[in-house]
Amino acid sequence: MTNLIYEQPLNEKTRSYLRLEHLATHIKQVTESDHQHHCFEPIFSLADLTERCDFSSDVLKDIDKQVLLLDKWQAFPHVDTEQVCALIKELTQAKAQLYSSGRLGAKLKQDKFISALKHRFSMPGACCSFDLPQLHYWLSLPWQQRQQDIINWTEEFQPLLKAITLILKLIRDSSEFINASANAGFYQANADKALSLIRVRINADQACYPTISGSRNRYAIHFVDFDRQKHTDKQITFSLAACE
Amino acid sequence: MTNLIYEQPLNEKTRSYLRLEHLATHIKQVTESDHQHHCFEPIFSLADLTERCDFSSDVLKDIDKQVLLLDKWQAFPHVDTEQVCALIKELTQAKAQLYSSGRLGAKLKQDKFISALKHRFSMPGACCSFDLPQLHYWLSLPWQQRQQDIINWTEEFQPLLKAITLILKLIRDSSEFINASANAGFYQANADKALSLIRVRINADQACYPTISGSRNRYAIHFVDFDRQKHTDKQITFSLAACE
Repeated sequence: MTNLIYEQPLNEKTRSYLRLEHLATHIKQVTESDHQHHCFEPIFSLADLTERCDFSSDVLKDIDKQVLLLDKWQAFPHVDTEQVCALIKELTQAKAQLYSSGRLGAKLKQDKFISALKHRFSMPGACCSFDLPQLHYWLSLPWQQRQQDIINWTEEFQPLLKAITLILKLIRDSSEFINASANAGFYQANADKALSLIRVRINADQACYPTISGSRNRYAIHFVDFDRQKHTDKQITFSLAACE
Repeated sequence: MTNLIYEQPLNEKTRSYLRLEHLATHIKQVTESDHQHHCFEPIFSLADLTERCDFSSDVLKDIDKQVLLLDKWQAFPHVDTEQVCALIKELTQAKAQLYSSGRLGAKLKQDKFISALKHRFSMPGACCSFDLPQLHYWLSLPWQQRQQDIINWTEEFQPLLKAITLILKLIRDSSEFINASANAGFYQANADKALSLIRVRINADQACYPTISGSRNRYAIHFVDFDRQKHTDKQITFSLAACE
């Protein structure tokens, strides 16, 4: 009985944050253990996304917003002030790091090895030893050495990724899961406040997954039967969190 | 002291064969143990390559050519006739399987799950749960079940991959490694017969990799210093096999 959580961003900014957080998790995995040439995919995706769009100003604004919210929390009784203080400290540190980091991806772009690989990686099956003899050599190096390379290549992105991970944690913590039920596989609701993220927790045993759509005040969930790849007409029980 | 082998195809056909063999190895890895969403990359690459080009006629011709060569071998004394017979049998079986297989990739194309994934996988960082909730569900399934899915998806390609792996093995066996030396990191040679594959075996301790270029009768090898990403002017010792 595995519980799975599906998340749907309700605005472009949260969509980008989730994508970057997903890459941060992926990069953590390929840094912690040897994934051979798979380690490059999240690095290249990260370089592409941050080149296309500068997320720092959004992130800096969100850090300020979250610090303000946490400050308000301090005033309430029964609040773990120590934890709130720790969070404020983390956010402030992330902000300082973001301010001091230069144009993201600039360092990586100058790396000849990475540039040669990035160019080839988009072609189907283009990681043969004749396509990229330098990759063939690099993969033969001891894991510790390759691990250090991965850390160096992704270092400049860490302040951004850390800040985004922190902001998303606070967004998620802004709402608790409530029990819900979808008649004939469909559920919809309105919200008084502007929402940024819908979270659906569902037991994998029901063999279906949600497709969620919506805008800031309104959202709908369709449950799809995985085996038939079609909308299910069963009653589906799940847990729901609508985060601001 | 790791010995690495670098291979360079000298014609388009061998280039494609090596690419497909590389994908076959990769598919074997993701079928044998759980590589999470990384399992899709070689499957999609294989589908792309076989859609772009029909390799069967080349492969069928090469099977016939290799069977003829092996038949000639049988006449020589000191030849392990049992092994030669086994190889001929394997090639004949591969040929029969190739004949009976339909248009490659047709089955995979009809799979709705695969089609949805394939469309998304080319975008950077596009494997979030909101991009592909069905993937998020699939990844939660027991490995045994996912393993069976991977086997089913790649089944139709196996006769082609098996035949190509066999042909490349015979091409590689057509020549033995000889010791060679590259003065100031450069080596070139001519051949009396038409070559299809150059193989360079080099100790990784020399910290350089070869870039090989050539056509059917002539080839050149430049050794590149990995750390400096520049042509090395050192004397490089290596082993060389030029295969027909």
